[in-house]
Amino acid sequence: MFKKILIANRGEIALRVIRTCKEMGIKTVAVYSKADAESLHVKFADEAVCIGPAPSNESYLKMDRIIAAAEITNADAIHPGYGFLSENAKFSKLCDEHEIKFIGASAEMIDRMGDKANAKSTMIAAGVPCVPGSEGVIQDFEECKKLAIETGYPVMLKASAGGGGKGMRAVWKEEDLKDAWDSARQESKAAFGNNDMYMEKLIEEPRHIEIQVVGDSFGKACHLSERDCSVQRRHQKLTEETPSPFMTDELRDKMGEAAVRAAEYIKYEGAGTVEFLVDKHRNFYFMEMNTRIQVEHPITEEVVDYDLIREQILVAAGVPISGKNYYPQLHSIECRINAEDPFNDFRPSPGKITSYHAPGGHGVRVDTHVYAGYMIPPNYDSMISKLIVTAQTREEAINKMKRALDEYVIEGVKTTIPFHRQLMDHPDYVAGNYTTKFMEDFQIKS
Amino acid sequence: MFKKILIANRGEIALRVIRTCKEMGIKTVAVYSKADAESLHVKFADEAVCIGPAPSNESYLKMDRIIAAAEITNADAIHPGYGFLSENAKFSKLCDEHEIKFIGASAEMIDRMGDKANAKSTMIAAGVPCVPGSEGVIQDFEECKKLAIETGYPVMLKASAGGGGKGMRAVWKEEDLKDAWDSARQESKAAFGNNDMYMEKLIEEPRHIEIQVVGDSFGKACHLSERDCSVQRRHQKLTEETPSPFMTDELRDKMGEAAVRAAEYIKYEGAGTVEFLVDKHRNFYFMEMNTRIQVEHPITEEVVDYDLIREQILVAAGVPISGKNYYPQLHSIECRINAEDPFNDFRPSPGKITSYHAPGGHGVRVDTHVYAGYMIPPNYDSMISKLIVTAQTREEAINKMKRALDEYVIEGVKTTIPFHRQLMDHPDYVAGNYTTKFMEDFQIKS
Repeated sequence: MFKKILIANRGEIALRVIRTCKEMGIKTVAVYSKADAESLHVKFADEAVCIGPAPSNESYLKMDRIIAAAEITNADAIHPGYGFLSENAKFSKLCDEHEIKFIGASAEMIDRMGDKANAKSTMIAAGVPCVPGSEGVIQDFEECKKLAIETGYPVMLKASAGGGGKGMRAVWKEEDLKDAWDSARQESKAAFGNNDMYMEKLIEEPRHIEIQVVGDSFGKACHLSERDCSVQRRHQKLTEETPSPFMTDELRDKMGEAAVRAAEYIKYEGAGTVEFLVDKHRNFYFMEMNTRIQVEHPITEEVVDYDLIREQILVAAGVPISGKNYYPQLHSIECRINAEDPFNDFRPSPGKITSYHAPGGHGVRVDTHVYAGYMIPPNYDSMISKLIVTAQTREEAINKMKRALDEYVIEGVKTTIPFHRQLMDHPDYVAGNYTTKFMEDFQIKS
Repeated sequence: MFKKILIANRGEIALRVIRTCKEMGIKTVAVYSKADAESLHVKFADEAVCIGPAPSNESYLKMDRIIAAAEITNADAIHPGYGFLSENAKFSKLCDEHEIKFIGASAEMIDRMGDKANAKSTMIAAGVPCVPGSEGVIQDFEECKKLAIETGYPVMLKASAGGGGKGMRAVWKEEDLKDAWDSARQESKAAFGNNDMYMEKLIEEPRHIEIQVVGDSFGKACHLSERDCSVQRRHQKLTEETPSPFMTDELRDKMGEAAVRAAEYIKYEGAGTVEFLVDKHRNFYFMEMNTRIQVEHPITEEVVDYDLIREQILVAAGVPISGKNYYPQLHSIECRINAEDPFNDFRPSPGKITSYHAPGGHGVRVDTHVYAGYMIPPNYDSMISKLIVTAQTREEAINKMKRALDEYVIEGVKTTIPFHRQLMDHPDYVAGNYTTKFMEDFQIKS
């Protein structure tokens, strides 16, 4: 087992990793930028090394400084957290070259899954469903017609040069295809000077549902069921839950099996997430694979009693997994508490936290690096805390989240707590009736 | 279901009850003494009524003021927490007379279990093992000899007028009985002017292990397994855990069955605890029954995913229990954090908390009514927080407790955190090898 792990990250995830290391009896090294000297991840690590000023490319992205910090402190492994260097193939390789174990995916794996086209063709080869459509530009209308039948209606025609909805047409039946083809090409030509078109299946009422997987160094993988992350604003997840209110046992088995197949096909090592889009008919399509721990991993931990960071470390140390899959025994919801003003277009609100008190009690977990007196630097992501509640049913979990949000005191900066309060009261959220489009129509009441 | 519950208590347990009420959509009324105006239980309740100055008999024990507060605020039930009026038969009856539901035992039940002799004879009638021995004074040595055989060696001879170990003899075999009888009687005569003796079975290496039960208004009861509360200092529990490291599946079934039998025999309604002494041979003996929620109830909640306060409320509202028993799926430990100086004979240390930060993350629960800036009044029990950790194994739970204790920041007053750190490192504690005598030999390292 590793004796000392350097955490190449900041904030709550750095602290999260330190906690598990402490519980496993592994020493920890924090690295930090000058702006983060007062963060809890620095205070709670056994050692801490300053690696530069605030801009990430001068510190948390400075591979040579991080490797040097590991060498100076004799760390035998590096945990990259999420973001920053966690999916950087070069850094993974650099760790290997310095004989420091990178607790994450190999350079080859990151390359393979990081490139979208590469990932998609690998998944098709593994037999994992991907969004059907044309491979590249459609030659003419005859091909378009044929493709639409193969893909299955409804389909989306999209301008290759497109953007902002221009040159895009949803087509629901064959008799409308010709008009759509002609008008989309005209529009694209006018807007971009180019009328190349491609086609994708239209995903009706899409949900973002991801499957947590863990693979070991013996080629074996298991899944830990799903997380529903459909509540997103501009592709930023705001809240996640497991089980998904849209899930069925049958769909979970199918998606879980596909995710395990994907992981085993590429001989994936460590914790990873296979993200899918699920349409209203419960068809699911591979979107991408994240070769790292996710922000929202705690909700999985809470419903299956499984420490994912611990498992990452064990697998990296060569311990085999049991191979069994894990199914949610409870219901868990996470709200991301961001230092943002929800009444002002979620504008970031860095600054000093003048008063702080976290909620507590049965079924409440708080993962945060902040405290009373902490100065939130303006240089980083605005997430300052993750509030996770767990209960026997979804209804109970929502009620628990409401009371936990009511208890949560963070003064001195604006936070997204008032937004989450409104979300937990929204009839469609309460009914579990939401898609990735949900936030487009969400009106925040001031 | 109740619309509004008044909580006739203070501190963490008042807040605990408020949390569950909120999650159940029930309004809450806090009552408070003038010394408690700034406590979180006052801030988080929907309404709050001041019921007098600090001494408990001027506020939290003032039955008429509490009943008046319930009537003024239209509360239809009262939750008494633990301590104060929670096992007061008169208060339970008073609530009945005012048609306010007392969420606890009936006056009759409290009387029946509150009187030790009464409780013991009831338990014997129910077939629950009690500590064997003489019923009253032993007439002569012949009776003594006969009794010792019936009771089973080892036995304790005790002076009826005794105290401080005077006139007490442990006897391990019959050939030593005569000497012990004579010398104990002589000693008692000399010390107390009276040589009346009685006999009890000597409980070898006793452990305090209690069984949580819940009974409903239909005469049905279930158990939720055990809590080991053997780590005590002057009969004050310091830390508790479940499962007990001394437990076997067979013993749990036997003790659980006995506790359910006890509860059903007396038609017990609500949450209760049957306390047993368990000797080194795993014989168990009824000590007493607490007809209320216990301080240490959270560890049970954590290992069986069951909200005990919720269950108390449901049962009080006439909802039947499922009847199934609950068995620990995980391992949970609670440390009571008291405002006391462990390096100075646990002397109370009230005062202002100048800095406060609770530990967080996976498997960590904090139940507390305090926060940064809170003034701990000198008038009450010194317990200011309960730190509860839960993990898959006992070893993991101990490691988690250590890291959580390390993270816990409470400045401005002395606390028992340093004691708990030492306890978690003590080889006998780590080995699960402790009895109620454990703290007598515990040396705190300064």
